[in-house]
Amino acid sequence: RPVREVLFFPSPPSCTEALLAEAAGPGAPVQPCPCPLPRNDCSLSRLLRRLLSARRSLEICLFAFSCPQLGRAVRLLHRRGVRVRVVTDAQYMGLRGSQIGLLRHAGIQVRHDQGCGYMHHKFAIVDRRMLITGSLNWTTQAIQTNRENVLVVEDAEYVKPYLDEFERIWEEYNPT
Amino acid sequence: RPVREVLFFPSPPSCTEALLAEAAGPGAPVQPCPCPLPRNDCSLSRLLRRLLSARRSLEICLFAFSCPQLGRAVRLLHRRGVRVRVVTDAQYMGLRGSQIGLLRHAGIQVRHDQGCGYMHHKFAIVDRRMLITGSLNWTTQAIQTNRENVLVVEDAEYVKPYLDEFERIWEEYNPT
Ligand SMILES: [Zn+2]
Ligand SMILES: [Zn+2]
Repeated sequence: RPVREVLFFPSPPSCTEALLAEAAGPGAPVQPCPCPLPRNDCSLSRLLRRLLSARRSLEICLFAFSCPQLGRAVRLLHRRGVRVRVVTDAQYMGLRGSQIGLLRHAGIQVRHDQGCGYMHHKFAIVDRRMLITGSLNWTTQAIQTNRENVLVVEDAEYVKPYLDEFERIWEEYNPT
Repeated sequence: RPVREVLFFPSPPSCTEALLAEAAGPGAPVQPCPCPLPRNDCSLSRLLRRLLSARRSLEICLFAFSCPQLGRAVRLLHRRGVRVRVVTDAQYMGLRGSQIGLLRHAGIQVRHDQGCGYMHHKFAIVDRRMLITGSLNWTTQAIQTNRENVLVVEDAEYVKPYLDEFERIWEEYNPT
């Protein structure tokens, strides 16, 4: 049965350490995190789990990306051999706390818009099969304080047009 | 067959006069608009058509709402007897060009957040049956210059959680 999920935010602060540590080294013993945050399942942990399910490819098209946990998840997928490509908005890329520099430093391909208007999308595609899209920018402020929504859809009729849009933007933002 | 549509923006400037005039008075002769804009079908006209299909109810949950054509469509639905309810973000409501004042003036119920964090949703629900959601704020700037996406879904599994979210916010923002 294809995945169909709706996530709403704000998501209360929670510890995602175990989730990320396990994804980094499956099977390895996970040190318990000393932080006092609850380990509850929440919209952020669900979003992380969907992303961490990637095995082959991950396309990300995001206006703003500064959430450290989501940045860590993306770098982890890259290290695991997933082909990660990121498109973002030039205006927000340089802001304090942006994850884009860390992604590039890790060797992940990132392209950004050059023109006027915002690259205002907020979607990701996992393994060319699962679409994650909504109002949410991947920032801690949005995750913890805003009213936001994210749809998770595993239906080719929706995934295909977003993949095509990603490829169009990827080519358009080709710097060479 | 349920509606499933994906709209991408920017949408080129186009004349939506005929579309709106016809919706205002079905059957009445429509004066041709003298403006030089093309009458092509585009993402904005498709979005307008989905909204104008409302017969009973329209819930709108929007961070920013300043596009005059979309504002006109919503007032027109209200006049036609559709039950319209609008939730918006307080920070953006007072901005120049906001449609919120015009909606209220027309007698449409509008509520806004009172707290910290943004009401960052961008969705609408037509006749409790069709969900319209994505990255797009209803502003001319976003429609004509940004890269944006809007999903149109007529699937109860997706519509229901958004309706519930709307009702939660509607109650939370009750000023009384
Ligand atoms: Zn912790
Ligand atoms: Zn015209």
